[in-house]
Amino acid sequence: MATPVKVYGPPLSTAVSRVLACLLEKDVQFQLLPVNMAKGEHKSPEYLKIQPFGQVPAFQDESISLFESRAICRYICEKHAEKGNKGLYGLDQLGKASIEQWIEAEGQNFNPASSILVFQLAFAPRMKLPQDEKAIKQNEEKLSKVLDVYEQRLGESRYLAGDEFSLADLSHLPNGHYLVNNADRAELFTSRKNVERWWNEISSRESWKEVVELQNKASS
Amino acid sequence: MATPVKVYGPPLSTAVSRVLACLLEKDVQFQLLPVNMAKGEHKSPEYLKIQPFGQVPAFQDESISLFESRAICRYICEKHAEKGNKGLYGLDQLGKASIEQWIEAEGQNFNPASSILVFQLAFAPRMKLPQDEKAIKQNEEKLSKVLDVYEQRLGESRYLAGDEFSLADLSHLPNGHYLVNNADRAELFTSRKNVERWWNEISSRESWKEVVELQNKASS
Repeated sequence: MATPVKVYGPPLSTAVSRVLACLLEKDVQFQLLPVNMAKGEHKSPEYLKIQPFGQVPAFQDESISLFESRAICRYICEKHAEKGNKGLYGLDQLGKASIEQWIEAEGQNFNPASSILVFQLAFAPRMKLPQDEKAIKQNEEKLSKVLDVYEQRLGESRYLAGDEFSLADLSHLPNGHYLVNNADRAELFTSRKNVERWWNEISSRESWKEVVELQNKASS
Repeated sequence: MATPVKVYGPPLSTAVSRVLACLLEKDVQFQLLPVNMAKGEHKSPEYLKIQPFGQVPAFQDESISLFESRAICRYICEKHAEKGNKGLYGLDQLGKASIEQWIEAEGQNFNPASSILVFQLAFAPRMKLPQDEKAIKQNEEKLSKVLDVYEQRLGESRYLAGDEFSLADLSHLPNGHYLVNNADRAELFTSRKNVERWWNEISSRESWKEVVELQNKASS
């Protein structure tokens, strides 16, 4: 049996949970290693050797170390093309190009606005930090515009990149989950019928439910 | 002869110039189609059909339309693996994983801070818009930290992803160029000896010099 890959970081981190969802879709065994961010372990010299930006997750597969959640996901899909969900990263060049386009739409459009909202609305209160009302308003407006484009796209195809669930949809789960469940912003999704249908479909996948279970265990 | 691919958008746009640099490295013929952003052509119904977010560039290759510059670059490299610079997107799985990691570092770490600086320092004055001093200061600090990590990395390897110039290095050219040449922030690069060596090397490639020529023609 292959040695499980190692994922460093708390499952409550959005970037860590993106990688976990991918590993579960691809049916790749993993070992989750804690990084106590409250104690600053992500800035320790030891950790910086495998993640020089001091962010989570870091990832190891035998002798390879990688960082950046979306890059780790691509590597998992390329290495394990024949395992688990075989179409997760596309089955041909055109399928893959469409998936890449929507992974980038997530990384460059959905993520910047939704990350700020998740931090301000879900994390800041838990950390007893003041909320920045201006940032919340600006980023709700930005995210609404992004979701208007998604609404149109999801009226034309079942998933973002086409007829099948892909890494592009998966990449939205971590921030989407907090927006809907911990930031009181479900309406951003439910007020758009195609986005709502899509969200219900992708967030009820077994892989994601397992990630949420890991998150719940970690926070209890 | 193959029909040239179409790139919509002004070469002065950082995202457009990223795609142009990739096409030139890969020796792929292209046609550059103007989009008059001052006149709002990027928000026209016609344009939104190929770029629903109303951003530049949009890209067409025969019957395929794509958006998001980094996704377009990946597609060009995958389709034309055997053309031009063959190693631009890696020659094997591990090489590619390292390139993906550093493309994501660019997209998620270098780009957010450098885009704001480029807008504030190079574009806002030309557009006679007021500058946001607080945003400038915050993002200079952020970018400095990112470049400190690059400095260390580039002490270990000639280019970001390894011994060869790759799509990961190329992705930094558009914002880097404006920071150095139009935003009076060359020092961010020249104050770090490995970053300076790397910057001089990547910005003097023939492909990038051709892009700068296209930019100069467009602004003259």
